[in-house]
Amino acid sequence: MELLKERIRRDGKILPGNILNVGSFLNQQIDIALYDEIGKEFARRFVGVPVTRILTVEASGIGIACAAARHFAVPVVFARKFRAKNVSGDAYTAEVTSYTHGLDYVISIQKEFIRRNDSILLIDDFLANGCALEGLIALAEAAGANVAGAGVVIEKGFQNGGRRLRDRGIRLESLAIIERMSAEDGIVFRP
Amino acid sequence: MELLKERIRRDGKILPGNILNVGSFLNQQIDIALYDEIGKEFARRFVGVPVTRILTVEASGIGIACAAARHFAVPVVFARKFRAKNVSGDAYTAEVTSYTHGLDYVISIQKEFIRRNDSILLIDDFLANGCALEGLIALAEAAGANVAGAGVVIEKGFQNGGRRLRDRGIRLESLAIIERMSAEDGIVFRP
Repeated sequence: MELLKERIRRDGKILPGNILNVGSFLNQQIDIALYDEIGKEFARRFVGVPVTRILTVEASGIGIACAAARHFAVPVVFARKFRAKNVSGDAYTAEVTSYTHGLDYVISIQKEFIRRNDSILLIDDFLANGCALEGLIALAEAAGANVAGAGVVIEKGFQNGGRRLRDRGIRLESLAIIERMSAEDGIVFRP
Repeated sequence: MELLKERIRRDGKILPGNILNVGSFLNQQIDIALYDEIGKEFARRFVGVPVTRILTVEASGIGIACAAARHFAVPVVFARKFRAKNVSGDAYTAEVTSYTHGLDYVISIQKEFIRRNDSILLIDDFLANGCALEGLIALAEAAGANVAGAGVVIEKGFQNGGRRLRDRGIRLESLAIIERMSAEDGIVFRP
């Protein structure tokens, strides 16, 4: 998605530890016109794929999932994050390791919000090691639902999450894949 | 907002401790068509009010703020929540007491995302004691920005947050105000 890549090149900040800060337009301040284009692009890429529900995780996935949901005309469900497994038996839960933040957490969704006959599209802002998306897949599978695919805005192609998901047979659409990046050479996208 | 009130009556669940669970359409599962109507209604109520930025707090405010932002054509900025004051000097912070969850937390926004000349609309899903909105007002004031108003989806009129904000001179628009509720008598809205 060229508009997105241009924006990342212009406004993304490369920080130590292979961190790409896109807080000025994607995940703390939200450029709502860009979100609409992102939503449209997910709809274009998943055209013809049956989707009954969009699943994401708080917090930065929510706005993007909502932008996509308008074009699919389906509900969004977002998983909540907890420090520990303190949720009730009415919820599906999965443990997630965050390498970026250096901690483990638990994600959880009330059971009533994922159905056995759902065809679920996963949406998130970033894909690095893929642990958050794998957690969401675990929730969907616990409910017996089908995972129709996963859409992420920015994939860090130099980390292994994308490969792991594609190897599992997940249809993954990343709107921008970063091949490599450094403060010296900037950002190189996968063609 | 009649559509919203009907939905609250139909799908809201009254739980012990004066908790209204609207997770099936508002803040865990998101009815995106309803969100669009909510966004439109905020735009209608704040027509003519200059707004340069919409401010909310993670997580459940984000989707609603995005739905509103489409109609105002301004960016959304969301405050992050932390357990403790561990954020850098590049951020505005405010302490918030959550009576619902029985704990204190800190909300924070990077300084670059609120400007001195901003006219800010606050958006959130719930207003009870008003502590979250007061925290957002503190962030806006720390930046020297103007608070143009606050829009909430559901106000618990039997708690004092709404009165406190109106007494401070904040222009507050609540799309549904609950006068009282109980498992026996259901939900009574303020006319």
